[in-house]
Amino acid sequence: MTDAALAFDLGGTELRAAMVNRAGDLLSFLSVPTLAADGPRAVIGQMQALAAEIRGQTPNIEPVGIGVGAPGPLDPVSGIVIAPPTLTGWHDVPLADILLEHFKLPVWLENDANAAALGEWRYGAGRGAASMVFATVSTGIGGGVIADGRILHGRRGLAAEIGHMTITNEGERCFCGAIGCFEALASGTALGRRATTGTRPFDGSMMRALSADGDVTGRHVVDAARRGDRQALEMLAVEARWLGIGLTNLLHLYSPDIIVVGGGISHGFDMLHGEIKATVAERAMSAYRDVPIVAAQLGRHAGLIGAASLVLHSDDRDTAALAAHPNNSGGDDPASTMEARHGQS
Amino acid sequence: MTDAALAFDLGGTELRAAMVNRAGDLLSFLSVPTLAADGPRAVIGQMQALAAEIRGQTPNIEPVGIGVGAPGPLDPVSGIVIAPPTLTGWHDVPLADILLEHFKLPVWLENDANAAALGEWRYGAGRGAASMVFATVSTGIGGGVIADGRILHGRRGLAAEIGHMTITNEGERCFCGAIGCFEALASGTALGRRATTGTRPFDGSMMRALSADGDVTGRHVVDAARRGDRQALEMLAVEARWLGIGLTNLLHLYSPDIIVVGGGISHGFDMLHGEIKATVAERAMSAYRDVPIVAAQLGRHAGLIGAASLVLHSDDRDTAALAAHPNNSGGDDPASTMEARHGQS
Repeated sequence: MTDAALAFDLGGTELRAAMVNRAGDLLSFLSVPTLAADGPRAVIGQMQALAAEIRGQTPNIEPVGIGVGAPGPLDPVSGIVIAPPTLTGWHDVPLADILLEHFKLPVWLENDANAAALGEWRYGAGRGAASMVFATVSTGIGGGVIADGRILHGRRGLAAEIGHMTITNEGERCFCGAIGCFEALASGTALGRRATTGTRPFDGSMMRALSADGDVTGRHVVDAARRGDRQALEMLAVEARWLGIGLTNLLHLYSPDIIVVGGGISHGFDMLHGEIKATVAERAMSAYRDVPIVAAQLGRHAGLIGAASLVLHSDDRDTAALAAHPNNSGGDDPASTMEARHGQS
Repeated sequence: MTDAALAFDLGGTELRAAMVNRAGDLLSFLSVPTLAADGPRAVIGQMQALAAEIRGQTPNIEPVGIGVGAPGPLDPVSGIVIAPPTLTGWHDVPLADILLEHFKLPVWLENDANAAALGEWRYGAGRGAASMVFATVSTGIGGGVIADGRILHGRRGLAAEIGHMTITNEGERCFCGAIGCFEALASGTALGRRATTGTRPFDGSMMRALSADGDVTGRHVVDAARRGDRQALEMLAVEARWLGIGLTNLLHLYSPDIIVVGGGISHGFDMLHGEIKATVAERAMSAYRDVPIVAAQLGRHAGLIGAASLVLHSDDRDTAALAAHPNNSGGDDPASTMEARHGQS
């Protein structure tokens, strides 16, 4: 029988599910718009329904466990989703236990950025690295860090909140309340905002033409730059510089073997890479300058594949916390200090 | 026989050596000014001479190994000191192998900030924490991170270079060439520089009185503030604010259970703590705000005790890399992936 995992990528907009084998292939895949406003019961119902469909599509595959990527903050050890801003009504939801109860399969839970980092590390651009930083740059900026061969969790699984690292004292106030957050300067949203304020509707610019004279998004800037638009190229240079300043910090702080950049911005990564590297060369201490900075390879499936890998690579030492297990008999194994004691009480 | 380690703290100014037992007590201690300008041969000769004296003082103690804290960059796995800026002529010096050859004892090597972090974690202010950030604030700012129960190394052992994290776009250019480094804003040197430029010789200020109308140091500012000097108190508030901004980043990036602040600035920590916490409360996301930020407890011996702990806690999983061993028989033990293969060729 093929080793496979049932994987979920629970986002505030889209809920995805897949059956994933040990090679990282999606044997079946489905997605639905998340009923994010309807509370946890509705969303968990969607997960159960998707799982039934997925298993119907792969009748000969019996998954060995369930891996879930979900929005943080969450506690991967206790399997609890704490208070994700994108999901209404989710407060300390014991998602791992709920899924265990329903599916009678062990459950691993990881925050979405960490799940995507694991996917890129095990199956994508970060293969073979002992230490890796994954930065996902889209509406916001999230991160996941592999440190010396395992995911970096920290207290309550809250490490690698890279979007709210202060890198300057200028720019728009971040939604978190601070000034100078990496995310407020370098996210796709920030790029679009600078392009919107740097142009006007009906000004004849290519960026406004591409946006039908509406607000300019990061994607419009990249598209205009690809067509050689000088103004858009300048916008990308500013974006790349902010990315370079933030990524230089991550080099100094985590000393990864590689930085992998994912998220929406990775569509324009080839146009940003030169200026990012130039900024790193200017600002990083010499020992860090030659670390590769590359685009992610798994695209939107990184989180799903990474969530599956929590199950399929669960025998890797220290990599993942088992959040809930049908017959977890407790703390006798000294190697299992990261395991929670769910499913036994 | 008492379990004990021979420990060295190799600094650019001072070389310290001690015999340390498992309780973290210094059974004997010696220090000499480092012959930093005379190259590795001279300094290693000092280490050998100090060790002979130390062993003479504790004749009934046979150390089980040697732990060395030395300035980075260094590679803890290969036991090589790469290129410390404070030691002339040290380029890729295989210090662990050299000490092994001389003493016929296994050698652990760690950079000085990591060694101090280990000391505070195992014997000082960070006892019991799964994750801890140690920030040493003196002439510069260095760091050591315990992540999920083990020291964070990263590529070439270069993680936690927290002093060169960019936190703003203002202030004096850092020696590293960048603008806005944490160290350039928040080190003891930066505090002294602000106090020096904020006063003038013979201006009658308390800070200048304490400095005999020479340049004001961080220590003078703290001393003046302790006597209630308003100008010095304002200087400390600015200092605490920069520390708070940088430490908030470290909370977001590493999510420690505790932050321990050591180095020269810890003498004034009680006067900085309130404003540091206020800055964190203002800037950190809510989940990180209640993390304790405390002063180091081991003072100048943290690095020495931490270096000893590399030996005495070497059976802790994953904590330390054994840099050189008299009869290391190689890679049969799957748990020893961090071990180097020195002393066998």
